[in-house]
Amino acid sequence: MTKQAEIVADPMVPTIEITREFDATPERVFHAHVDPELYAEWIGPRASNTKITRWDVRTGGEWAFTGEGPDGGGTYAFFGSYHEVRENERIVWTFTYEGEPDKVFLETLTFEPLEGGRTRLRVLSVTGDFETRDGMLASGMDVGVNEGYEKLDEMLAAQEEA
Amino acid sequence: MTKQAEIVADPMVPTIEITREFDATPERVFHAHVDPELYAEWIGPRASNTKITRWDVRTGGEWAFTGEGPDGGGTYAFFGSYHEVRENERIVWTFTYEGEPDKVFLETLTFEPLEGGRTRLRVLSVTGDFETRDGMLASGMDVGVNEGYEKLDEMLAAQEEA
Repeated sequence: MTKQAEIVADPMVPTIEITREFDATPERVFHAHVDPELYAEWIGPRASNTKITRWDVRTGGEWAFTGEGPDGGGTYAFFGSYHEVRENERIVWTFTYEGEPDKVFLETLTFEPLEGGRTRLRVLSVTGDFETRDGMLASGMDVGVNEGYEKLDEMLAAQEEA
Repeated sequence: MTKQAEIVADPMVPTIEITREFDATPERVFHAHVDPELYAEWIGPRASNTKITRWDVRTGGEWAFTGEGPDGGGTYAFFGSYHEVRENERIVWTFTYEGEPDKVFLETLTFEPLEGGRTRLRVLSVTGDFETRDGMLASGMDVGVNEGYEKLDEMLAAQEEA
């Protein structure tokens, strides 16, 4: 069964909150967010090929990656800094699409333990105005979010079997 | 004449926007924000003694400092990461008071050139909810902002004379 991520745009504040549950512990879901090889494997839509270009996961660190479409389709670059990394609990980072460098999101990822060794991941993004927030929503981000988390489900299941 | 910074809390979005003009070029005002010795000299209220503890001003870098009150009064620590540093134009960084580590602000500083070699500095802070924003406003930040910018005025004037 395919799980859909819940994607909520707050009517009062320019935020997007994504909630998704995973059949793995917070430790394993967190690890898939900080290990560059694992992250590159699951992040983004299925048709996209992710290449990590900077990766320094720590409080005060930085990150960047590119996503390349199939058959030499366009390349999209993203970058940001890690405000705080709390092992297995919380990551706060900034996020920008290089093509629109003045639009910046502050994202807080929370890895909440659930019964049965499961995890609820929440990703809260905030930006300074509704126009930027709504532009992100209209960008087709839901495809990347949902396909990415499906790939993460598959990766976590394959780790179980290994 | 003492200039007051304009501090505006938006009723619709959880932002604080500070606007302040300086009698110096964007290059000089920017420099006073990225040079650790100069920054420690002007930032914060007059009664506070600032010590820089991490300082790596670049896109993807990090910063931290402590402010110590007079006569061994409390020490306050702050930290964050630099999302982007655009020389003489724009700094985007994150900001957290260590005593409340779950409250994070994304701040965009814009150094706008005005006629006569002057600068309009705008500092736009956004956070995820109104409660956190209003807590920052109620913290007495206006004293630190206004006294800090007065010290910066004095520093810029002293550089002119030197």
